[in-house]
Amino acid sequence: MTRIDNRKPDQLRPYEIIMGAQPHAHGSCLIKMGGTHVLCAATVEEKLPHFLRDKGHGWITAEYGMLPCSTHTRSNREAARGKQSGRTQEIQRLIGRSLRASVDLQALGERQIKIDCDVILADGGTRCAAITGAYMAMHQALQGLITSKKLTTLPLRDQVAAVSCGIVSGTPVLDLCYVEDSAAQADANFVLTQSGKIIEIQATAEDAPFSKEEYAALFALAENGVKTLFAAQLKIMMATSKATVTLS
Amino acid sequence: MTRIDNRKPDQLRPYEIIMGAQPHAHGSCLIKMGGTHVLCAATVEEKLPHFLRDKGHGWITAEYGMLPCSTHTRSNREAARGKQSGRTQEIQRLIGRSLRASVDLQALGERQIKIDCDVILADGGTRCAAITGAYMAMHQALQGLITSKKLTTLPLRDQVAAVSCGIVSGTPVLDLCYVEDSAAQADANFVLTQSGKIIEIQATAEDAPFSKEEYAALFALAENGVKTLFAAQLKIMMATSKATVTLS
Amino acid sequence: MTRIDNRKPDQLRPYEIIMGAQPHAHGSCLIKMGGTHVLCAATVEEKLPHFLRDKGHGWITAEYGMLPCSTHTRSNREAARGKQSGRTQEIQRLIGRSLRASVDLQALGERQIKIDCDVILADGGTRCAAITGAYMAMHQALQGLITSKKLTTLPLRDQVAAVSCGIVSGTPVLDLCYVEDSAAQADANFVLTQSGKIIEIQATAEDAPFSKEEYAALFALAENGVKTLFAAQLKIMMATSKATVTLS
Amino acid sequence: MTRIDNRKPDQLRPYEIIMGAQPHAHGSCLIKMGGTHVLCAATVEEKLPHFLRDKGHGWITAEYGMLPCSTHTRSNREAARGKQSGRTQEIQRLIGRSLRASVDLQALGERQIKIDCDVILADGGTRCAAITGAYMAMHQALQGLITSKKLTTLPLRDQVAAVSCGIVSGTPVLDLCYVEDSAAQADANFVLTQSGKIIEIQATAEDAPFSKEEYAALFALAENGVKTLFAAQLKIMMATSKATVTLS
Amino acid sequence: MTRIDNRKPDQLRPYEIIMGAQPHAHGSCLIKMGGTHVLCAATVEEKLPHFLRDKGHGWITAEYGMLPCSTHTRSNREAARGKQSGRTQEIQRLIGRSLRASVDLQALGERQIKIDCDVILADGGTRCAAITGAYMAMHQALQGLITSKKLTTLPLRDQVAAVSCGIVSGTPVLDLCYVEDSAAQADANFVLTQSGKIIEIQATAEDAPFSKEEYAALFALAENGVKTLFAAQLKIMMATSKATVTLS
Amino acid sequence: MTRIDNRKPDQLRPYEIIMGAQPHAHGSCLIKMGGTHVLCAATVEEKLPHFLRDKGHGWITAEYGMLPCSTHTRSNREAARGKQSGRTQEIQRLIGRSLRASVDLQALGERQIKIDCDVILADGGTRCAAITGAYMAMHQALQGLITSKKLTTLPLRDQVAAVSCGIVSGTPVLDLCYVEDSAAQADANFVLTQSGKIIEIQATAEDAPFSKEEYAALFALAENGVKTLFAAQLKIMMATSKATVTLS
Repeated sequence: MTRIDNRKPDQLRPYEIIMGAQPHAHGSCLIKMGGTHVLCAATVEEKLPHFLRDKGHGWITAEYGMLPCSTHTRSNREAARGKQSGRTQEIQRLIGRSLRASVDLQALGERQIKIDCDVILADGGTRCAAITGAYMAMHQALQGLITSKKLTTLPLRDQVAAVSCGIVSGTPVLDLCYVEDSAAQADANFVLTQSGKIIEIQATAEDAPFSKEEYAALFALAENGVKTLFAAQLKIMMATSKATVTLS
Repeated sequence: MTRIDNRKPDQLRPYEIIMGAQPHAHGSCLIKMGGTHVLCAATVEEKLPHFLRDKGHGWITAEYGMLPCSTHTRSNREAARGKQSGRTQEIQRLIGRSLRASVDLQALGERQIKIDCDVILADGGTRCAAITGAYMAMHQALQGLITSKKLTTLPLRDQVAAVSCGIVSGTPVLDLCYVEDSAAQADANFVLTQSGKIIEIQATAEDAPFSKEEYAALFALAENGVKTLFAAQLKIMMATSKATVTLS
Repeated sequence: MTRIDNRKPDQLRPYEIIMGAQPHAHGSCLIKMGGTHVLCAATVEEKLPHFLRDKGHGWITAEYGMLPCSTHTRSNREAARGKQSGRTQEIQRLIGRSLRASVDLQALGERQIKIDCDVILADGGTRCAAITGAYMAMHQALQGLITSKKLTTLPLRDQVAAVSCGIVSGTPVLDLCYVEDSAAQADANFVLTQSGKIIEIQATAEDAPFSKEEYAALFALAENGVKTLFAAQLKIMMATSKATVTLS
Repeated sequence: MTRIDNRKPDQLRPYEIIMGAQPHAHGSCLIKMGGTHVLCAATVEEKLPHFLRDKGHGWITAEYGMLPCSTHTRSNREAARGKQSGRTQEIQRLIGRSLRASVDLQALGERQIKIDCDVILADGGTRCAAITGAYMAMHQALQGLITSKKLTTLPLRDQVAAVSCGIVSGTPVLDLCYVEDSAAQADANFVLTQSGKIIEIQATAEDAPFSKEEYAALFALAENGVKTLFAAQLKIMMATSKATVTLS
Repeated sequence: MTRIDNRKPDQLRPYEIIMGAQPHAHGSCLIKMGGTHVLCAATVEEKLPHFLRDKGHGWITAEYGMLPCSTHTRSNREAARGKQSGRTQEIQRLIGRSLRASVDLQALGERQIKIDCDVILADGGTRCAAITGAYMAMHQALQGLITSKKLTTLPLRDQVAAVSCGIVSGTPVLDLCYVEDSAAQADANFVLTQSGKIIEIQATAEDAPFSKEEYAALFALAENGVKTLFAAQLKIMMATSKATVTLS
Repeated sequence: MTRIDNRKPDQLRPYEIIMGAQPHAHGSCLIKMGGTHVLCAATVEEKLPHFLRDKGHGWITAEYGMLPCSTHTRSNREAARGKQSGRTQEIQRLIGRSLRASVDLQALGERQIKIDCDVILADGGTRCAAITGAYMAMHQALQGLITSKKLTTLPLRDQVAAVSCGIVSGTPVLDLCYVEDSAAQADANFVLTQSGKIIEIQATAEDAPFSKEEYAALFALAENGVKTLFAAQLKIMMATSKATVTLS
């Protein structure tokens, strides 16, 4: 099988993480996975929402959106329609859960981090790119809490990244672009940690049910794929981190 | 480990599927998994929504709701709040995808089946019970299309059921009740087919990331658990089916 | 005139009240009036909404809904449409008013009882069944307040039940089923008390204005009909009540 | 008992109906019942809404609103809140039903009349004033259909007016003003026809259930009260009507 | 050029300001500019909204609406549609800004004035009539604060009125009626003060861009037009004012 | 007076227009005016909305949004709140009007151009930057219609750009940044054409009314400022245009 962009089945698209893309936020980056570009920003709020107060721990929540012209054909603006789609809500819940699982919420203290992931260009895998980028924006915001002496150590339990995999024309492949995604028999999103653990698996038969063996092949691709992303994240964190980072 | 209701780790709760619970619908049942009771109904509409017309295939969609007093403490009525929660939308999208993956949409023809899953009592695992029950309601509705000569064979590719599993106090267990679910380190929902294939996996670290081995244990429990449910479904289908059922 | 189900003009449909249908609520029942089945639940909240605080009395409010497949042809889910219909709001306001008129709100104290009435099957007269059942759910919840020593006597002024009547093919009849209701020239709902008083009358000309004499005939049917329902309610309350009940 | 404005128990407030208050509409009036002023307008649409087409009859629908500063203390603007209250919906449904019961919808033909009732000043009894005025606005619009040769006779079956009654300090009184309404033990709205028939009765115990005898007293007051309003309506219709009016 | 109503290019329509049109409000008037009639009311609230508290100054806000039958063809009711149009929001923001610019918010103290402008009849220029009338309603409400000894002097910096101008058939004209407005090449709204200053200019090319010279002609018309309105306002204020008015 | 960023009163911020920023759209650019960055995209739809069909001309409409972290402190996501603010609607209506005034809608033919302006970074003057950039995105989309032979000439009447001006510490200045804007006594947005005409003026007293002379100074600044922007636009259009551009 030849992939539409001539990649090998286990090859990621060219990627780039540019920190500080929205400098008004406490942490931010622009993450590019091939033709998918997502702005990720983290805002620290010293006040928790009412129902989360006085529980002795913090919270992380996320919002996700796509610019109308980010997609191959223009999609409707959710603000104009007056509500977020089910897909949007599903994705922003996933991003929030994924980051929370990587943070020691007790150590974070009674504050909230709001993550915003906005898709500027969409070419498949936006939710995975958003998670990988959101981790970096959050990391930068947490560094800021150390700089401002609100925290003394990073309240992180593990490093997080995500990739999509899928079965395209019968072959399991890594990091699907939009054209592949549209034609996939099955597709799966894996949110994994640097220490080799699982935060979230979402595997879906798009067209026909798939086998245990096919699932195992997808998982193996993902495990390998995130290693590259972890290295890319780490390189940036090493360069920018002012606190000693001892993850997992 | 002793489970709160003294079940073995791989033991389902007592279950029951009562067909015809909402006789105005084309297919319906009340499914009980322990203290979780879900009304499932299927409505056949001979007209597809505008954007799905003239594509040569049918469609299956689902809606999900919980009665305010189905839960341990009363939850707000979504109709009164004016919108469905992200959780509700996530679940109804899952139910729809799960059933569509089991149906030959071309063979269904240009018609739509609307599934309604309404939780009367909630004690964990409502989305899985809803899928297992929805399959039966849909099956009854499809039988009706054969009786009324609109179809000659059931447009089914496989039989579908779902169970939840989770890691509770370090032990992987099957079919979590609410108390177990609230305390689980990880929880996973598996939508599987009678032929041993996967339709959907949703595995989530609630508290801390989990390992590949833990995931494998959860999958094994689920594979075993659905066998019992497939037998229960089949028994009813054999008794009520007027067409010859040759699944998978 | 022969009624579609062969009842006499002044005959109620077979009825049944099953207490405890939603055991997580403080009070609940499933009420069946022929083919109309309504789940009624009562939740006690020790906190009043902001605008009702510090007035020295409690409050009772109600919400009403119909499951999409409860009706002869599927009706839209209000949560999905994003708002409750005018009919729904009219009915839930009626249920709330009806129960409040039967309770000594001062004696109830600064707490709120929320009533949920959810129609599982609809065959005419759902609002009347809801009121008759809601009274029973509320009664059970009030008993709970005595058991938990929050109240010493039931803060009830009278026993409440409701029936619909209508003029069908020129004849006044009691307790209309859906087919009768659809064809009625006029229809009326009466909320009455065990002591013979009126809480609410809603009489509507569906097709053509009706006369004073016709109205009087409807009222007489209703007065007689509720007697049977009061007896049925009382029998259950006698069996379950732990406090001495001295109504009206 | 002395009424706050020194009226006798069976005395209406000073009333006035000024035709043509919103000249862009096909029919309109400003109706004043004491301190309650309501603008009523009727718009004829030659096109029925989709779900009412091709049934061989027309339709009448109504909308109701209150200006924020019409009430004793400013009420919120429903357009700003983003939804109509339950009370508003209840009232506009009542106005629509009341007018439909007076019209021969078949004779009206496949067109719709939209009624708008907007309260400029509110001092009790706004829904009844709205119905009495809406009948006049509709009558003027129907006259216009005759003038423009779309109809040859008025498709009216009867003349309609409405009044409120209530029990205040134990005495049944007619046409309650706001202060009386706030203190009433029971209150009732009667929509009646010139020929002595009933279109709608809504009687509600505000504080405590009321007796059959009390209800009868309220009805007698209403029967008498509407006679004055029918005469006032008729006088205007005689003066303005170009077609021969032979009602009921 | 002859104007449709035979006015001279620089001539206002007949105008009238009737104070006290909604007597439940703290200040109110009905302003008529030709066929445009707007009810304006001012409500004083002693409590500021949460986000404006403890800043040492008050606030003025405005809401605007049109009755459905105020316009040449019936417009939809915003409360029924469930949201205010962009045009409505634009206008009510303009009214609020215009009045705030005329008031010394510090001197007003920590209270809010809510302005309601409701169009009863629309024939062009409703937003300008609303501003001119709202100033008068606000003035009456401020007088009330002096009468009730909450203020000792009127916290006003200047007197405010507004007019529209436009280029119709190539000629700049003052105070456009609806027919002129619909055909204008450009139209402009000027909110000006009695002392000759500018509060707001909104000038829009409807059809084709216009020149600086044309703009200057519109401004000159407006400057002249508001003089008449200021005189009319002043005459009423002199007659009704109990405090000594020394404006600008 | 020294400006916060040391600019002269009549000096624009550094600007840049990068074409093709959202390549899936028919036309797009990223416009930067100092710290204000706006993505502008144009989508051609060959189908007009229902109410604009069969009138012999096309339409241009615009939507505007700000990413939550574009602003100095995070602003709420409008899609999550469920509605667009009044400010957003005001701005998107302005953008639409401004572009329509520059286009020959008849020559455009029965198609619609949808403009999306999304603020990535906000530092004052976002609506003006949006208009200047939207013109370029629209121009590129119109070029595409020529390339695809749907049009033979650009249906443009004039070139459009916009700048803001304001009175800061008593001095009229051009192109306000956020800090200046927050402290301005008055601020004004001018939408002008290359031929020296006016499309829209919005001038507002923020703090106190301003004089005719001050207005004139603002206008003069704007006239000068847009000249630079027209030159920048033209340079890009010359480089990219495939059709002969003969504007105004």
